[in-house]
Amino acid sequence: MQPVSAGRWFTEPVAPGVRLGYEVRQELARDKTEYQELVLIENERFGRVLMLDGVAQTTTADEFIYHEMLSHVPLLAHGQAAQVLIVGGGDCGLAEEVLKHPTVRGVTQVEIDAQVVEFSRRHLAQLNAPVFADDRFHLQIADGAAFVAQSQQQFDVVLIDSTDPTGAAQVLFSREFYANVRRRLRPGGVVVVQAGVPFLQPQHFAGTLQNLADTFPISSCYLLAAPSYFGGHLALGWASESLAPQDVAVSLLRERRAAAGIRTRYYTPEVHQAAFALPAYIQELIAKR
Amino acid sequence: MQPVSAGRWFTEPVAPGVRLGYEVRQELARDKTEYQELVLIENERFGRVLMLDGVAQTTTADEFIYHEMLSHVPLLAHGQAAQVLIVGGGDCGLAEEVLKHPTVRGVTQVEIDAQVVEFSRRHLAQLNAPVFADDRFHLQIADGAAFVAQSQQQFDVVLIDSTDPTGAAQVLFSREFYANVRRRLRPGGVVVVQAGVPFLQPQHFAGTLQNLADTFPISSCYLLAAPSYFGGHLALGWASESLAPQDVAVSLLRERRAAAGIRTRYYTPEVHQAAFALPAYIQELIAKR
Repeated sequence: MQPVSAGRWFTEPVAPGVRLGYEVRQELARDKTEYQELVLIENERFGRVLMLDGVAQTTTADEFIYHEMLSHVPLLAHGQAAQVLIVGGGDCGLAEEVLKHPTVRGVTQVEIDAQVVEFSRRHLAQLNAPVFADDRFHLQIADGAAFVAQSQQQFDVVLIDSTDPTGAAQVLFSREFYANVRRRLRPGGVVVVQAGVPFLQPQHFAGTLQNLADTFPISSCYLLAAPSYFGGHLALGWASESLAPQDVAVSLLRERRAAAGIRTRYYTPEVHQAAFALPAYIQELIAKR
Repeated sequence: MQPVSAGRWFTEPVAPGVRLGYEVRQELARDKTEYQELVLIENERFGRVLMLDGVAQTTTADEFIYHEMLSHVPLLAHGQAAQVLIVGGGDCGLAEEVLKHPTVRGVTQVEIDAQVVEFSRRHLAQLNAPVFADDRFHLQIADGAAFVAQSQQQFDVVLIDSTDPTGAAQVLFSREFYANVRRRLRPGGVVVVQAGVPFLQPQHFAGTLQNLADTFPISSCYLLAAPSYFGGHLALGWASESLAPQDVAVSLLRERRAAAGIRTRYYTPEVHQAAFALPAYIQELIAKR
């Protein structure tokens, strides 16, 4: 889907016959890379909005919701994650959350598009500045699918922070990719993936969860609600050989968060637990796969 | 805010500098009443969309989320609600959910605008037809604030299904109104109110919860995520003299739902419990009142 510029509005198609418009106070930057077109605008309510190929990926007003839930749920469920792999995540807001955990000794981020990282480093410092000053952060510009197929590194937590499954990102939702991710996980490790908006992308969502279930002994999803991801809940799929991130007691999550000294704006141990309660229509999408 | 018709799109302002557009496959009906302008369109993804003064109130694709959570949470927490008052709720989709409970012997719905009910009866039968064939349903065309001030009736559950606090609906968020609602509650009764989208309407949300807290011994809110209510979570405020709807065990909610034989598409006993876990930014809005 292509962006439609209508005067001072930037309009994103979000469903058949539905579109979301952001008023452009100012277009701050624009770039065209080998992989995608980047546009950064300033919007009154959402602050800086990063669009990739016309789809809003990150806004400075609400990125905390997605980034906190994608990172702190698996990391606090694990409790002693030392090595973390991020595939995608070019805006580096996810790495910032991961690096808040003192248990983490290394974050390897594999992003295919160097220019997204450069662009985000320059224009989205408010959500990623600490990352570039942190010795534990290791950026590799590479294809994430090729990396997990070839690397011998092992990780406690793997986070797939991708765009929706079109173009270069499509392979990041396949069984083959997940099988390679599984080989990169240490015992007790867990992977979490962006799995789409069940209400608007039922097939993508159900297919992603099916591929995880086909590849790992245990898997399911949890939910968040972020304004700029239109359509009700966004689902994050998880999979592991042994760690079910909802089975960790709230009291233990509280202890771990306190020990880590992490301040959050969305995540709480109670929200962590609650995020695994799936509305009936989402359960049905999983069951009828 | 006024609707902006742009060709075949119906555009709703949802935040400063943000708007949501619904493509109009067909405009099915339009009416202008003493209180508001009604427009009903057919949209590819959301089905029939009812707009009041340019704001989407109800869509046939996702109304189940709001109506199930506004009804089944207090009714199953109560367990033996016989008399229910609905203030507003002109589309009658809420009454349909309430009437699914066999404990309910009477639903009094007080709606200010007779034409909204007539319009919805004619055009939204798929979500309200059973209501008009049910002897337990009693419609009063009246001002909801005047009704709760003057009525001597007593109710187990009171549901405020209003538009946002502008125009005629404004009084439905006041302390005086809530004090009158409290006098209409039987012992063990509970009121639930539409309390806005915390991310986009922080002052409205916090003010509503403050007014409930000033009027009742116990109160807070719970959350849902519905696509057509843009902005992340929508909050439903609750208040009571003695019944905290989150303190009912999931096992008891399961028994009650099974006994009632209610099928749902969003609500589950687990979702009921999870809905009371508030993201940190929403907790902070309540705490800093």
